[in-house]
Amino acid sequence: MPYVDDCVFCKILQKQIPSVSVYEDELILAFLDIAPFNFGHALIVPKDHHHSCTTLGDDYLARMMQAAPRIAAAIMRATEAEGFNLFLNNGSVAGQVVPHVHLHILPRFANDGVLMTASTRKYDSTQAMTDLAEKIKQRITHV
Amino acid sequence: MPYVDDCVFCKILQKQIPSVSVYEDELILAFLDIAPFNFGHALIVPKDHHHSCTTLGDDYLARMMQAAPRIAAAIMRATEAEGFNLFLNNGSVAGQVVPHVHLHILPRFANDGVLMTASTRKYDSTQAMTDLAEKIKQRITHV
Repeated sequence: MPYVDDCVFCKILQKQIPSVSVYEDELILAFLDIAPFNFGHALIVPKDHHHSCTTLGDDYLARMMQAAPRIAAAIMRATEAEGFNLFLNNGSVAGQVVPHVHLHILPRFANDGVLMTASTRKYDSTQAMTDLAEKIKQRITHV
Repeated sequence: MPYVDDCVFCKILQKQIPSVSVYEDELILAFLDIAPFNFGHALIVPKDHHHSCTTLGDDYLARMMQAAPRIAAAIMRATEAEGFNLFLNNGSVAGQVVPHVHLHILPRFANDGVLMTASTRKYDSTQAMTDLAEKIKQRITHV
């Protein structure tokens, strides 16, 4: 299932909706976000429609992550950013809006107003932490 | 340069500092964050010391991103999370604290208090957007 109807990113990939691209190859397209948190904010989108990255193929995952730092470095040079965030929101509870996997590249500047806030939690004990890790390990499928 | 002195993650990778791991192979180690935003919050760390992901090898980048959704899916099953964020902060301005590349896996729950806030910006014109994209494209090294 490379593309589906009613997906804005599938339409962009098929050039049915215009985008301002910064990189493209046979597996991915990277283009500027039209509602950027900072100028240069880009999205890497795989050329295969998956709502969740948990079902996306390994070749797409690899290429996205290999391309991201190179594109990010170019964005930094072009915008004089001092750093960047890569982030992928998976599921609406995590802030995913478009239901087609996309990796954000967000160039960062001092005092740019981008804020990730959360209070840190504390495990009751090392045992509680080890128990949770065991539960996770048992549920990991083959990498 | 696989490991360096005075890096807490290099020490964890060498088992000089304990960690509660959830996954390990020849390229990466994943362990629970000791100051989690949500329980199950994990970090994937490459077994090669690089401050920035822009200098990390392609095999490490690929493996990190291929492992992340599988570990995230296991964390979701173990914690009953409804989604997750993957994020990598590159540079102190982007929130990087430990100067050794690490990819966060953050399980998400409704109303969990994790918030990413930023106001969106607006390009002056399509031309301004295209000009910036051109500038970025010219600065991308081989992917």
